Amino acid sequence: MNAPAKIDHNLVKPSPADQLWTLAKSDMAAVDAIILERMDSPIGMIPDLAQHLVGAGGKRLRPLLTVSCAQMCGYEGGDHHKLAAAVEFIHSATLLHDDVVDESDLRRGRKAANLIWGNSASILVGDFLFARSFNLMVETGSLEALDILSTASSVIAEGEVQQLASLRDITITEQIYMDVIGSKTAALFAAATEVAGVISARSDAEREALRTYGQKLGLAFQLVDDALDYGGFESALGKSVGDDFREGKLTLPVIRTIAAADEAELKFWQRVIVDHDQQDVDFEKAVSLIRKAGALKSTLDLARNYAAEARRALEIFPESEWRSTLQDLADYVVDRIS
Amino acid sequence: MNAPAKIDHNLVKPSPADQLWTLAKSDMAAVDAIILERMDSPIGMIPDLAQHLVGAGGKRLRPLLTVSCAQMCGYEGGDHHKLAAAVEFIHSATLLHDDVVDESDLRRGRKAANLIWGNSASILVGDFLFARSFNLMVETGSLEALDILSTASSVIAEGEVQQLASLRDITITEQIYMDVIGSKTAALFAAATEVAGVISARSDAEREALRTYGQKLGLAFQLVDDALDYGGFESALGKSVGDDFREGKLTLPVIRTIAAADEAELKFWQRVIVDHDQQDVDFEKAVSLIRKAGALKSTLDLARNYAAEARRALEIFPESEWRSTLQDLADYVVDRIS
Repeated sequence: MNAPAKIDHNLVKPSPADQLWTLAKSDMAAVDAIILERMDSPIGMIPDLAQHLVGAGGKRLRPLLTVSCAQMCGYEGGDHHKLAAAVEFIHSATLLHDDVVDESDLRRGRKAANLIWGNSASILVGDFLFARSFNLMVETGSLEALDILSTASSVIAEGEVQQLASLRDITITEQIYMDVIGSKTAALFAAATEVAGVISARSDAEREALRTYGQKLGLAFQLVDDALDYGGFESALGKSVGDDFREGKLTLPVIRTIAAADEAELKFWQRVIVDHDQQDVDFEKAVSLIRKAGALKSTLDLARNYAAEARRALEIFPESEWRSTLQDLADYVVDRIS
Repeated sequence: MNAPAKIDHNLVKPSPADQLWTLAKSDMAAVDAIILERMDSPIGMIPDLAQHLVGAGGKRLRPLLTVSCAQMCGYEGGDHHKLAAAVEFIHSATLLHDDVVDESDLRRGRKAANLIWGNSASILVGDFLFARSFNLMVETGSLEALDILSTASSVIAEGEVQQLASLRDITITEQIYMDVIGSKTAALFAAATEVAGVISARSDAEREALRTYGQKLGLAFQLVDDALDYGGFESALGKSVGDDFREGKLTLPVIRTIAAADEAELKFWQRVIVDHDQQDVDFEKAVSLIRKAGALKSTLDLARNYAAEARRALEIFPESEWRSTLQDLADYVVDRIS
């Protein structure tokens, strides 16, 4: 009798993101139903445009975090679905506005909505989704959740404005960059996880732990995203590579590369970022300078540190499949590309 | 001895808007203080831009309505100031986004913010003010006020999208136009007055009366605004005349003029609105056609009817200086130009 063929389980093992989706399947179906219902409107352009963006799916990472953290907390009501949908609406609204601000071509692998319906429609439908997100929060009756998510929303806008003010400025420090990603990205992750603790009526320490988990996960996520913009592949990422470079957006890989640049290299960065004088070959040159400086690797190392902090933050909770999968997700956010 | 010179008191009598401002002076000072405090941010572009718009003053009509209605209801707390500031922030956020959508040149008699700081900054600072408005509402602890204002915010966005979808369409009906102004303008007036009744814990009938007052006043206000765009003077209005015409925005004066147009006139409207082929002289031609059709007068008559409905709605409240001034304001909104 022959031994059975060896199976490499690593090849078929689902990612922590997939595992979380499987665990939260019925919750996420409920969230999706709310999303579809609440983006409806008699004004046809609204559901059309919202469907184009929200219906494209994406990772739904933020609402997944809200429902998963609520489950880890043993929450037994139904408000986590509404809050998760509210979180996704806030995220979708910022994406619609970002596409206008950034003049993006692709979003979630599709043509950006503003290129189909125009900038005006993207601005106004973003406003609609944002308002609807507050309707949903009001229905939960949780003033604390409303406070956390409205504060996160203003912080996101601050981060976006700070990023805008820093465009094409090669003197930007790492601290400013960390402030920007802490505001524009990590604040919503932190709010998405903290509100789960709020509706579950957990202790202040546990709420803080959830918030820390979301915050650090969000930082890791954005650092990886910014690294991918210089090292990923368009098809894998669902957005164009080199967007940040073309827009003159200073991210950590470039900030660290510029910090180590010699005079000729500085002149290159001056020309392509500050003077915004770019040729086709310049992006490749930028990538090679970034690799030479080891700045992609050091960016990913920093992301890995934040992921480890996120993992540790959840240790305050008793062991469970939810907890371990959320912890694994933190590492996966970084390891998906490295 | 000569008789004293006759004084025409009509010439010096303050308008109802001025009277309401005088009555509500200390309240409005408190509202202004909150507005200034809450539009602050370490990201300098935010207070700069917000100050340009909010600091330009404008009529502050919506927050004035909130505090005046609260006073008429005998409200004794301090939440009306926060709600009034929240209402002004929602209004300011929509103005910033409208300027990008409409490509306006002037706002409140100043250069529109998007022409100074760019469209991106206007979009993001609008988002910031919108989020801050919800922060303020949360602080009042009134879930009902939050519900009313978040619902109004989504209705405003729906109205703006509907208006966008109706641009350059000369088949637009009066009903669609009334839907649009009911949503984009009257919804916030109605919310601004209703929340005053909510925090004052008035009966459902009184809340409904306040809502009706705001709604009808808002309709009258927008009808007059749309008439002014074809009949006012730029200096008096603080915005450019002919904006709606140039943007191909169908408002009641034009809808009624087109309904009465002969074949040659229809061709004119087809060219200037649908084909958007406009010469300098076309605006004057449009104004003369509108006057010939009596459409400015009939628009103002309709506004006068809504103002009368607004006046009547407040009769449920006991007589007071607040009530009578709010009632006079309704007529004044129309009479300021006719």
